[in-house]
Amino acid sequence: MKMRLLSISLLVYLNAVFAQESVPLGQVKVNEQRIEQRIFELARFGRNEKGEGQRTAYSQGDIEGRAYYMELMQKAGLAVRIDFAGNIIGRRAGKDSSKKPIAFGSHIDMVPNGGNYDGAYGAITALEIIEVLNENKITTNHPLEVIIFQNEEGGLVGSRAMAGKLKKEALSQTSASGYSIAEGIKRLGGDPERLQQAARKPGDLAAFIEVHIEQSKVLESRGIDIAIIEGIVGIEDWDITVTGLANHAGSTPMNDRQDALIAASKLVLAVNEVVNSYEGSQVGSVGKISVPSGAPNIIPGRVEMSLQMRDLSSEKIMKMYADIEKRAQKIAEETNTEIAFEHLNLSSFPTIASKEIQDRMIKAAESLGISYMKMQSGAGHDTQEMAALGPIGMVFIPSKDGISHNPKEYSSSVQMANGANVMLHTVLLLDQNQ
Amino acid sequence: MKMRLLSISLLVYLNAVFAQESVPLGQVKVNEQRIEQRIFELARFGRNEKGEGQRTAYSQGDIEGRAYYMELMQKAGLAVRIDFAGNIIGRRAGKDSSKKPIAFGSHIDMVPNGGNYDGAYGAITALEIIEVLNENKITTNHPLEVIIFQNEEGGLVGSRAMAGKLKKEALSQTSASGYSIAEGIKRLGGDPERLQQAARKPGDLAAFIEVHIEQSKVLESRGIDIAIIEGIVGIEDWDITVTGLANHAGSTPMNDRQDALIAASKLVLAVNEVVNSYEGSQVGSVGKISVPSGAPNIIPGRVEMSLQMRDLSSEKIMKMYADIEKRAQKIAEETNTEIAFEHLNLSSFPTIASKEIQDRMIKAAESLGISYMKMQSGAGHDTQEMAALGPIGMVFIPSKDGISHNPKEYSSSVQMANGANVMLHTVLLLDQNQ
Repeated sequence: MKMRLLSISLLVYLNAVFAQESVPLGQVKVNEQRIEQRIFELARFGRNEKGEGQRTAYSQGDIEGRAYYMELMQKAGLAVRIDFAGNIIGRRAGKDSSKKPIAFGSHIDMVPNGGNYDGAYGAITALEIIEVLNENKITTNHPLEVIIFQNEEGGLVGSRAMAGKLKKEALSQTSASGYSIAEGIKRLGGDPERLQQAARKPGDLAAFIEVHIEQSKVLESRGIDIAIIEGIVGIEDWDITVTGLANHAGSTPMNDRQDALIAASKLVLAVNEVVNSYEGSQVGSVGKISVPSGAPNIIPGRVEMSLQMRDLSSEKIMKMYADIEKRAQKIAEETNTEIAFEHLNLSSFPTIASKEIQDRMIKAAESLGISYMKMQSGAGHDTQEMAALGPIGMVFIPSKDGISHNPKEYSSSVQMANGANVMLHTVLLLDQNQ
Repeated sequence: MKMRLLSISLLVYLNAVFAQESVPLGQVKVNEQRIEQRIFELARFGRNEKGEGQRTAYSQGDIEGRAYYMELMQKAGLAVRIDFAGNIIGRRAGKDSSKKPIAFGSHIDMVPNGGNYDGAYGAITALEIIEVLNENKITTNHPLEVIIFQNEEGGLVGSRAMAGKLKKEALSQTSASGYSIAEGIKRLGGDPERLQQAARKPGDLAAFIEVHIEQSKVLESRGIDIAIIEGIVGIEDWDITVTGLANHAGSTPMNDRQDALIAASKLVLAVNEVVNSYEGSQVGSVGKISVPSGAPNIIPGRVEMSLQMRDLSSEKIMKMYADIEKRAQKIAEETNTEIAFEHLNLSSFPTIASKEIQDRMIKAAESLGISYMKMQSGAGHDTQEMAALGPIGMVFIPSKDGISHNPKEYSSSVQMANGANVMLHTVLLLDQNQ
């Protein structure tokens, strides 16, 4: 089997190298049906008897899904290898082997009970680009790389390793599948002992681009085909503690209370007001709140809550934080409470998409008659780690009802083809102009 | 030992019956030092090696504390019995055995790691009244009863049984000491099988009065000696559920959120505003709030919170609730969420103190030169259950810093004497005028 695949690879490769590039840009197109069919095929791996998608990284489903995908890569003539971190890399030679590779890809692991499009769509699209180039006998100047990162959902594990940022300590962490990261890497054919050799050098890639479902409903509600991503937001987290005085909720008069929840409620609204008072796409959320040992008959003496803000500009995040802190001081005075912020050591810095890549994406979309808008990615993606190795860009397509990380995830074949066509032509444009 | 105590009792009794009532009202006074000394003595029972008060109902400390107290009762000439519910009743005969007893008392059990004044002060004062009458050779027209209710802190267990309201189902509940209520009643010398025989009839008592620490700092901050209680508030409880839409806190734009915590925060403030918008001493509190499976990076999709309101008027509570519900509807519309209220089946109805008893308390305070104010009791007390058996009244004395249910509980001997003197003279006034 392997021998036959390799010989097919060789034929395809020779075919590509010696073919004429006669197809004008904007006319080569991805195969809409094939993309959707492969999405459905990949979805079978890790699906349990209840029909739920349980393809967490390192699980049996993940391993089987990767095997399915690698077979398709080999059938498409790619030279496939697994790096020491367990990432899959498929290479297609270009005319000029001294050029840096143009890379694209995504991930095929999913969250527990996840959906069939998050990651999978970008992975199937990467393969589709290769197939279309093969079918149209196009050889690019640059080598091309299809990269499937391992364990995206568990914290961008594979892409962090490739960027040289995965710390040794992370290896002992338990992943959603129950295996440690180290065990998982071994299960995928990597070698946790040689992790550092999976790291690539800054400047190694001519570009890295990824297409992904939006995970929100901005595109859907505006009826726009794709989003061209300006960058992936930075994230800053704080723990907030509000301290009042726990007291009897019956015998303590209303005007003699130091109710930590009154202060916390004012602060939740102040966070919302401050974040909304800025121009732009920044977001800020209080996702957790609790009154430790709270009871209906005790005035809350202590409230613990989270604050998370995201934006492409770290400066804007810290400006909003300063505003929130000022509001908090005033609230504390009004309510006779104390409000303390602890900035958590979890910062994720913003990643700015390459202007040049964005311009190619716009050109590709325009030449294809695909409508687009600019957008920030509020969620993290492997692409942000690839920014350490070269310029990056991302395309989003609509998610039905904005649902993601959920079996109800859905994007239509037409929507997927739109994103894949923009990706295909972005690769061709990047290849021509660099 | 028992024989000797009984003969002492008989002597004291005869002494009292045949003595002349020569002491003018307002001149008999309690013994301030004796009250404080007995508070300290009682505090020894249930105190652990760390110095904490662990006299929960049915514990060894509770049993020993009751034994100490019953010995004092017998020494003071009272005819002591334990009813089938485990309450202690000490009776002092009056001149007219056809008259209904004037009763007073409190409890000596405490919350885990409790203080030395809550309950104990009322119990020691009840005994002090008897001692002073004995010392001044005063025999009342009415019989007097000192009642020490069992397990007040666990839900007014003893007083509810005496009022005929303790349900059989309650017997299997586990108390703070680890014993079931049924086991606890046996440990105290009662008989859970004959609980119904502990119930007394409506109209059985000429009056029941109790003195207690305030458990707040209204008296302290105003510099007033005592509070005369107008009633014990009713309590109504609701569970509130706010339903929004859980979503990615990064990819969901600010203007496309259905954040249940934004709605909940507005509601917490609305509750406070509504309760404060009424004249009077009503209180309303949100003591519990949580975002089930909340996380810093997820927009809250569901918030669960409690609402408790207390007032002497059930009508006012329900009026405030109607206002809050109206505000909630508006908040739900503004925030694109749903807000549902569930009225819990825990209602505690208001207990109004007898106007006649309040007037006697005022007269007593005025004749003694003790300053007073009217107050509602926001906390529950055994006295509210006694309202089923006759007219009731209560007196509060200042609690240092408003602290209660805590080892830091403190009231000075002067403050305790003030309350005890008002109680003593209220008993005498009730006895003269009825």
